[in-house]
Amino acid sequence: MGRVVAESVELSPSVPAEPASDDSLLKPRVVIVGGGFGGLYAAKALKDQPVRVTLVDRRNHHLFQPLLYQVASAALSPADIASPIRAILRKQVNTTVLLAEVTAIDVPAREVVLDDGSRLPYDYVILAAGTSHAYFGHDEWEPLAPGLKSLEDALEIRRRVLRAFEEAEREPDPAEREALLTFVVVGGGPTGVELAGSIAEISRFTLARDFDHIDPTKAQVILLEGADRLLLTFPEKLGKKAAGYLKRLGVRVRTGAMVTGIDPQGVLLGEERIPARTVLWAAGVRASPLARTLGVDLDRAGRVVIGPDLSVPGRPEIFVIGDLAAGKDHRGKLLPGTAPVAIQQGHWVASNIARAVKGEPTVPFRYKDRGNMATVGRNVAVADIKGLKLTGFVAWLAWAVVHVFNLIGYKNRVLVTLQWIWAYVTFQRGARLITEEPDTRVAPPTSS
Amino acid sequence: MGRVVAESVELSPSVPAEPASDDSLLKPRVVIVGGGFGGLYAAKALKDQPVRVTLVDRRNHHLFQPLLYQVASAALSPADIASPIRAILRKQVNTTVLLAEVTAIDVPAREVVLDDGSRLPYDYVILAAGTSHAYFGHDEWEPLAPGLKSLEDALEIRRRVLRAFEEAEREPDPAEREALLTFVVVGGGPTGVELAGSIAEISRFTLARDFDHIDPTKAQVILLEGADRLLLTFPEKLGKKAAGYLKRLGVRVRTGAMVTGIDPQGVLLGEERIPARTVLWAAGVRASPLARTLGVDLDRAGRVVIGPDLSVPGRPEIFVIGDLAAGKDHRGKLLPGTAPVAIQQGHWVASNIARAVKGEPTVPFRYKDRGNMATVGRNVAVADIKGLKLTGFVAWLAWAVVHVFNLIGYKNRVLVTLQWIWAYVTFQRGARLITEEPDTRVAPPTSS
Repeated sequence: MGRVVAESVELSPSVPAEPASDDSLLKPRVVIVGGGFGGLYAAKALKDQPVRVTLVDRRNHHLFQPLLYQVASAALSPADIASPIRAILRKQVNTTVLLAEVTAIDVPAREVVLDDGSRLPYDYVILAAGTSHAYFGHDEWEPLAPGLKSLEDALEIRRRVLRAFEEAEREPDPAEREALLTFVVVGGGPTGVELAGSIAEISRFTLARDFDHIDPTKAQVILLEGADRLLLTFPEKLGKKAAGYLKRLGVRVRTGAMVTGIDPQGVLLGEERIPARTVLWAAGVRASPLARTLGVDLDRAGRVVIGPDLSVPGRPEIFVIGDLAAGKDHRGKLLPGTAPVAIQQGHWVASNIARAVKGEPTVPFRYKDRGNMATVGRNVAVADIKGLKLTGFVAWLAWAVVHVFNLIGYKNRVLVTLQWIWAYVTFQRGARLITEEPDTRVAPPTSS
Repeated sequence: MGRVVAESVELSPSVPAEPASDDSLLKPRVVIVGGGFGGLYAAKALKDQPVRVTLVDRRNHHLFQPLLYQVASAALSPADIASPIRAILRKQVNTTVLLAEVTAIDVPAREVVLDDGSRLPYDYVILAAGTSHAYFGHDEWEPLAPGLKSLEDALEIRRRVLRAFEEAEREPDPAEREALLTFVVVGGGPTGVELAGSIAEISRFTLARDFDHIDPTKAQVILLEGADRLLLTFPEKLGKKAAGYLKRLGVRVRTGAMVTGIDPQGVLLGEERIPARTVLWAAGVRASPLARTLGVDLDRAGRVVIGPDLSVPGRPEIFVIGDLAAGKDHRGKLLPGTAPVAIQQGHWVASNIARAVKGEPTVPFRYKDRGNMATVGRNVAVADIKGLKLTGFVAWLAWAVVHVFNLIGYKNRVLVTLQWIWAYVTFQRGARLITEEPDTRVAPPTSS
């Protein structure tokens, strides 16, 4: 196929698309790599600009990552927090959505290279490909301790957690049963705190009376953090508060705990062994390998070092945003890899491209810090909103409102709200399904 | 492990269960194989009987099969139509739920054999293991044309259908593009009719304006049926009506069409070839292989020939219900493999076991035929309710009410109703996700 596909996307008259006017063919081409917060909001902000936008993602859906742990903990269904990118951008006439994997950016040729070898030429490219899990040089830990980045990850974690209780119910050996009922979460950032809190809740409330031969409320949930406190990106007071809430839920919080090994029997902390059949990874991320194909400066985590206007120094046509970018705020502080940063950068990069198209100079990004939140349990959270530190139920309400409000689509907002109310009242979780892979593991019958 | 597990389930004091009173250990043991409609309703009906019930299923959830095609067609999420069996039976003190695969019934020993070799002794066994797809001796068709029995099947079909449109969008070759946009459903029973209708709706409404290079409304949906009309189990008038509705949706209905081959390029009908990249199977079912381990009479489809009281002739302690049973109504007519039959048999078998325990004679099953329904599109259906033949919108309303009402759990009823209203108003489908298998395809880190 080679370049045929890319040309058909751009030009080929054999494809039954609406005929492009000559005018639109002269407009600059913006290719966006990634349909997460950064990429999606950049595409939306380019809606009325005189550019032709192509958004490429290897998945067909935008994922509301901040609620992904709720899919992993069986509170929500995948579709509640994910929306098809095509549907979101349907009414945007200057934008094309492509389901494809990007394998490289060909900087000299100004082309994005796709998995089938075809290429998308660009005048501007926005790289928003995000991160994946990093195992600190121990990639062999990955199958033993899955991380939480995609819907597939969330379903895998849900499957492992629920299955551990089922296997414990059938296990006659007490030591093995205890290992099955021990859940270790590695990493005490927001994801780790939320995961540990939800697993504790599942065992203390949801499953409490469901089994005959085990007592799920006796399950051990252990949260391991290498630093000396939880939630390093939050004020210290809130990290302590979160640890207190977790302990009240029955989570064993261990700070200063450096994981030195993970094997099918459990976790090693130096000489100490924690026997556990379920280990979850929330300890680190690694930039998308796409960053390397740019051939520019990367930071230690593999992220692209960007200039103040979000472009790559010396490459004004290449912008990098979201978790993949090592950007700084106007005071020189490194920006965290959060949804608000990515969303704001998405808006900003769109207006900088609009400026560049008009021949105007680009403008340095200014981050508006609206706060930072993490939930711990069914009605407690910690929030740091412009210095105002909220804890407990008030923080949880603020957290719930902010998250529902930012979900994409009215339907998802209504469904998530209803399920939260239902879960709150009944202590149940609506998506307690153990689903396996399809029995027939073959590629779909297509020739491409 | 061997028998250890089974004994621990029954007797072992090392397992931290509530200590059984001596009295309860004398109660007869009823093992139910399968948590579908038959098995689940049998378990529920045994609630207050003086028996110890163990329900074994290889999945942790009861599935509301009549709405499974709505998961396959992206209208509902898996969790909306599935409920954890443990949660459903939580309050039932005489019942244990076991997540395990049953490999055989050891009739002489009166034991159910599990996949790990352990055994569950029984005084009565209720076999309700259902059916899987049958490819009429062409098992090689299975990976090419998935059927619709489990949530995994539904997600696989959803993935293939949505992915076909995505691949067509990128495909420059017109013939290949047409094959990608051709969907063949084999089998004109209720499942085939519902699947064909939903795929037509997806292409005509949901995706209509989502692509740039293809026109989804031009997708071909072809429904193949070997007999001379659709919906053979319905009155002829309703089968014709359904065919008319499907045609109006743009489905090509071909009766008298015998599939002679399926390959990655499409479907063969004798000399004729239909190029299609997506083929779905709704043409036949085969009884669970468990039936064979009974060593009793099976019918041509592998189902167990049962007596009037639902037990196996000569084996009063073995009952077979639901799709796995070849049972007759009181007029000698073979009962169809539907949810109402399974539910009524579940209730009936429970009362027959209660009688047997008391030393009373069992009673022949009497089926109350309350009707038969199938939907065709977003607001038309056909229904045959005690001779009253409904069609169109009225039938669809009846269908919707009956199905929502029979869903398990208030939450699911509310969520399904809301999503139907939303879909009805917006023409959208809430679960348009293409999810892949997890990247790390390893067994969970357990030793069992």
